[in-house]
Amino acid sequence: MMYAAIMGYGTIGSGVAQILLESRERIARCAGQEIGLKYVLDLREFPDSPVADRIVHDFRVIEEDRQVRLVVEAMGGLNPAYPFVKACLNAGKHVVTSNKALVAAHGTELLQIARDKGVNFFFEASVGGGIPIIRTLYRCLMGEGIREITGILNGTTNFILTKMDREGASFDEVLREAQELGYAEQNPQADVEGHDTCRKIAILTAMVTGKEVNYEDISTEGITRITDMDFCYAKELGASVKLLGSSRIVDGKVYVRVAPVMIGREHPLHAVCGVYNGILVKSDMLGTSMYYGSGAGKLPTASAVVADLIEAAQNEGINVPIGWGAERQEIADNGTSKSSYFVRIFGDANEKAKAVQEELGEVRTLVLEGADEFAVLTREMSEAEFTRHAIALDSKWQKDGEDGIRQIIRTELEG
Amino acid sequence: MMYAAIMGYGTIGSGVAQILLESRERIARCAGQEIGLKYVLDLREFPDSPVADRIVHDFRVIEEDRQVRLVVEAMGGLNPAYPFVKACLNAGKHVVTSNKALVAAHGTELLQIARDKGVNFFFEASVGGGIPIIRTLYRCLMGEGIREITGILNGTTNFILTKMDREGASFDEVLREAQELGYAEQNPQADVEGHDTCRKIAILTAMVTGKEVNYEDISTEGITRITDMDFCYAKELGASVKLLGSSRIVDGKVYVRVAPVMIGREHPLHAVCGVYNGILVKSDMLGTSMYYGSGAGKLPTASAVVADLIEAAQNEGINVPIGWGAERQEIADNGTSKSSYFVRIFGDANEKAKAVQEELGEVRTLVLEGADEFAVLTREMSEAEFTRHAIALDSKWQKDGEDGIRQIIRTELEG
Repeated sequence: MMYAAIMGYGTIGSGVAQILLESRERIARCAGQEIGLKYVLDLREFPDSPVADRIVHDFRVIEEDRQVRLVVEAMGGLNPAYPFVKACLNAGKHVVTSNKALVAAHGTELLQIARDKGVNFFFEASVGGGIPIIRTLYRCLMGEGIREITGILNGTTNFILTKMDREGASFDEVLREAQELGYAEQNPQADVEGHDTCRKIAILTAMVTGKEVNYEDISTEGITRITDMDFCYAKELGASVKLLGSSRIVDGKVYVRVAPVMIGREHPLHAVCGVYNGILVKSDMLGTSMYYGSGAGKLPTASAVVADLIEAAQNEGINVPIGWGAERQEIADNGTSKSSYFVRIFGDANEKAKAVQEELGEVRTLVLEGADEFAVLTREMSEAEFTRHAIALDSKWQKDGEDGIRQIIRTELEG
Repeated sequence: MMYAAIMGYGTIGSGVAQILLESRERIARCAGQEIGLKYVLDLREFPDSPVADRIVHDFRVIEEDRQVRLVVEAMGGLNPAYPFVKACLNAGKHVVTSNKALVAAHGTELLQIARDKGVNFFFEASVGGGIPIIRTLYRCLMGEGIREITGILNGTTNFILTKMDREGASFDEVLREAQELGYAEQNPQADVEGHDTCRKIAILTAMVTGKEVNYEDISTEGITRITDMDFCYAKELGASVKLLGSSRIVDGKVYVRVAPVMIGREHPLHAVCGVYNGILVKSDMLGTSMYYGSGAGKLPTASAVVADLIEAAQNEGINVPIGWGAERQEIADNGTSKSSYFVRIFGDANEKAKAVQEELGEVRTLVLEGADEFAVLTREMSEAEFTRHAIALDSKWQKDGEDGIRQIIRTELEG
């Protein structure tokens, strides 16, 4: 019997407790021994819950109980999650967390303490909810040289974009609906501005490179500027718009970005809809592989936490080599990274064709019946080159007192 | 340094050799020690290959060399693969294979010998080529109660069906093209009749249930009867036809089948096209997850073998608990399993509507301009019930000297 404690009895903490209590036998079979839930740390009481008699309010009870070998951090945020997790690892306990903010901000230090103490710091549930992507990276893609990892990593924004795509609704309408359904927070900024995706792609990039990634180095663009008009053009192209966190390794340089991208029907992430997440990996030998599952939700996330607990129990006394070291990964400037662009422009396509071609070269033009604008798809060019042309084009029109470029979205329309 | 031998220097064996030689450092980092390639067993010589000086023709050289701790079986077939693998395990060597026929036929015995000898018998590459599904099942979905595993498990048939879907071509045409491109064997029976998929779903089912599955117990239907007409109707429905291997666990009973299924655009496997494979898993807590990648190919398959070698090297002296025991899993009769059906019927839809409705109840009728037939989609019913009605309907028309039912395909049109 190995004893566990859960810190935080919210959605995820209660899900973990439920699984530990209800699937005791199955877990024991996998872990090689029973995992007993000894404490649940929370400021509140839960007299009617199945863990009523396990609730404690003082962290030191857990820290100082040498019987407790496994600790689940399900409090969220950095304080007191960070000092508590650190103390548990220093006390020689395995820690499992679902807290991407904690992993992105302090993962390097916590992984090092785990190594020093011969325990494990696992965080499968911090990225991709019900997709076992972290374990896939260190267990299944061993020995693969990973060239790209790109994911739809945030269920809220994917729900919003999917609804906009299918129903032609506006961003604000759909956001309100998502909030009513509980799919979006009342303060949705972390999701819709891309900050959540940013922390997750930072963690995935660090897993792939083996080095610390500062999420603040990552260029991050959310979905608040995506409109129903963008989806009208996308439909014409058989495409959709998704918020992608993406990391590419080219000639030893690491390019990372969070941004909405227009992707075609052949793209493996195109079919990832609603609150689902999907993660695409391109690697040297395996080629393209893709992993798909629930992005969030009580039980999927809790199940990922329990899988980590089982692996920790299987490795009592052994630090499983995962994660990254203290060396900082430099994030390359995106100016040289190439893409083709979807550009919406005010006015008449014929009148502006010449100016557009002079700056952007040959483009594919898209016209929607009755619209006061048109759109073009550019050839592939570097971000720096495109920006130069776009600014030149726009300022020319602005000088003429005319509206210019209304929207720019990167595209990956060919598979 | 741990020494390895490869048995069979064909496509996969040479791919494994290539990776072992070219990615020596990366593999050493993952495995915790270098993996040196000592022998390659083949009847032929390969004087111009990088393994020229490692070629041996006598299996006993490998069997009797105590330095060789890892053996890759890449010969295919059962003889001499089976006796050789058995001898290696009995000699206390880890064995890794990509040979699904071997695993499906003798996996139970070979897994048991590995357990008895404290070594490992790994077979990631036997199912899903570049999809790490075996490892996902025993490493990532630990503690999950799996309710369904359904896959597009054969790249050749998926290539054929994708071509038929996109180009409206006939089965024979596309098969010929696939053979010319090397995607289909000159004797394509194992693929197109579903036998390959059958062995793979047998292995996956045994992984999920922990019991031996006799692949001969699995009802198997191939794609040779799928026609371009089927795809015309499918297009009307926004659907496609895929060859699925499927295993469902309902109330402790295990239903397994290989058959073409018409699936809708929302189905997670719908976007799995060409030579790619995809595997859908439904489990208690994680919900629906899906894994996608190259179904075959030299490097994806070889990479899966190398991942197994690395895991074996990491677990020297330890039998990792995977696979299944000797107890036989009973496969339930599919008669009670439910589905809705796509049925193509000769003649005029209006004239036959009454008879159809009397037998099959309310159906959705599909008519293609200019065709001498029509199709219906039935409600969901058990296989036994449907078969009874279909036979009654068909024999009535046959008695009237008329053509009756031309095609029956199970459908999963709602996600």
